[in-house]
Amino acid sequence: MNQTKLRIAYLGPCGTYSEDAAIVYSQSFSGRLTPLPSISAVIRAVASDEADRGVVPIENSLEGSVNITLDTLAHDVELYIVREIVLPISHCLYGKRDEPIETIASHPQALAQCRHYLNDHYPDAIQKAVESTAIAATMVKEGKVSAAIAGSKAGVLYELIPRDVNIQDNASNFTRFIVLSRRPEPDATAKMSIVMRIQGDKPGSLCDILSEFAQRGVNLTRIESRPARTGLGDYIFFIDLDGTTRQTQVAEAIHAVAVKSQWLKNLGMYDIICPAER
Amino acid sequence: MNQTKLRIAYLGPCGTYSEDAAIVYSQSFSGRLTPLPSISAVIRAVASDEADRGVVPIENSLEGSVNITLDTLAHDVELYIVREIVLPISHCLYGKRDEPIETIASHPQALAQCRHYLNDHYPDAIQKAVESTAIAATMVKEGKVSAAIAGSKAGVLYELIPRDVNIQDNASNFTRFIVLSRRPEPDATAKMSIVMRIQGDKPGSLCDILSEFAQRGVNLTRIESRPARTGLGDYIFFIDLDGTTRQTQVAEAIHAVAVKSQWLKNLGMYDIICPAER
Repeated sequence: MNQTKLRIAYLGPCGTYSEDAAIVYSQSFSGRLTPLPSISAVIRAVASDEADRGVVPIENSLEGSVNITLDTLAHDVELYIVREIVLPISHCLYGKRDEPIETIASHPQALAQCRHYLNDHYPDAIQKAVESTAIAATMVKEGKVSAAIAGSKAGVLYELIPRDVNIQDNASNFTRFIVLSRRPEPDATAKMSIVMRIQGDKPGSLCDILSEFAQRGVNLTRIESRPARTGLGDYIFFIDLDGTTRQTQVAEAIHAVAVKSQWLKNLGMYDIICPAER
Repeated sequence: MNQTKLRIAYLGPCGTYSEDAAIVYSQSFSGRLTPLPSISAVIRAVASDEADRGVVPIENSLEGSVNITLDTLAHDVELYIVREIVLPISHCLYGKRDEPIETIASHPQALAQCRHYLNDHYPDAIQKAVESTAIAATMVKEGKVSAAIAGSKAGVLYELIPRDVNIQDNASNFTRFIVLSRRPEPDATAKMSIVMRIQGDKPGSLCDILSEFAQRGVNLTRIESRPARTGLGDYIFFIDLDGTTRQTQVAEAIHAVAVKSQWLKNLGMYDIICPAER
């Protein structure tokens, strides 16, 4: 372990779910946590050596991928995922009691995770997308919006009383956070992530790639397509899988896939912290 | 063709790209176009027989899927895609000249399609997500925000002068719009879409599904995973493919996939209108 404190940037301000993830990540060592105003600011801080680690959300069980995280990792920086943290997410609605709710602010992911609740209870309220749930909480505090969706920690921090709790569309709501670093974590064994562009456009190209994993018994936990940003119908694929290249069958599958790809980028090998399961 | 005018709902207000798509769709017959304030309002209007057709965006070449469209089709309504319209998208920045830009409003997809431009030119501006690009244009007109990203048609309609044009991250920017109906279009031949949930969780489940298409030479134009909304790691897959079940090999592949799926929903067969290619 380093003598100097690890500089850990996270999507702030204080009171975000990303802060919870950063605290969970750093509980076994001494880190200095710094909130930054956007996901892209966190990622850029790590890339430019202003931080040693960055903690950002990558996927939610209700609303899916955080596109800015995926796209930045694929196209704009050379960073590695070194840890995954899975946290249960329970949203509250904050706002002054007995006052009409005209505008509800939150992170777009949180608004989408509460889509049914908002349609049922506040169909006419304006939904205002902001950079984080905690920012939304501060806006209620400052009287800039009538309501916000945020976690209970942000509520406590900004002295807000919840009008409603547990408002997400499904009680089972989890977000995967990743910890990013400039250097890979070669000792991890649980999972790894790659992003790749398939060569050619013939029927079965993707199937051909996936069969390299299947025939070696490598389990894919997730496959996500994103635009290659070169034209409609051009995609890149993010693949998460069980195991790492320390296992022969994974190493062989990745090698075979790389040969068949236009390009393939290793996004890192990592272990998982899942406090809810402990 | 019906004697009565088809009631066509689209994501409004006047001046959206969806309106362009609705105009392209209805140019060969007589339709009555009605703008509605959100994608979900358009889809619900068709489902409840307040409209005969609904025109909404489903995918952009830079920013990817429109999640609300996919999720609503998969989980909430029984509608069919009956046409696909592909339009080139060129965004303008509207706002009063020589005035500082504090807030930039637009649809979240448009903001994301201009991510690099906004980072380079207006890194400190607040990005305000609203229901449509045309709504954003009206907000500039009414002095509610200092700038908006919208198409040139919205600019003309709301008498705004562009501060900048063609500001999306890539000159080649296209959006796919779909036309929804309560009844399928059995005569279409170009494409079809399904959404399905894979049975089981063993290595190779997805590969096994895809091989049913590959071994019959059926080309998949797109595969997109979305959360099943039942738990982290549970996904459903949207698949677009060339051809329809009027072709034997497609019908056989779909049948084989349905047998292997927990559930499979036919999202419709449709032809494509692509004005840019004419």
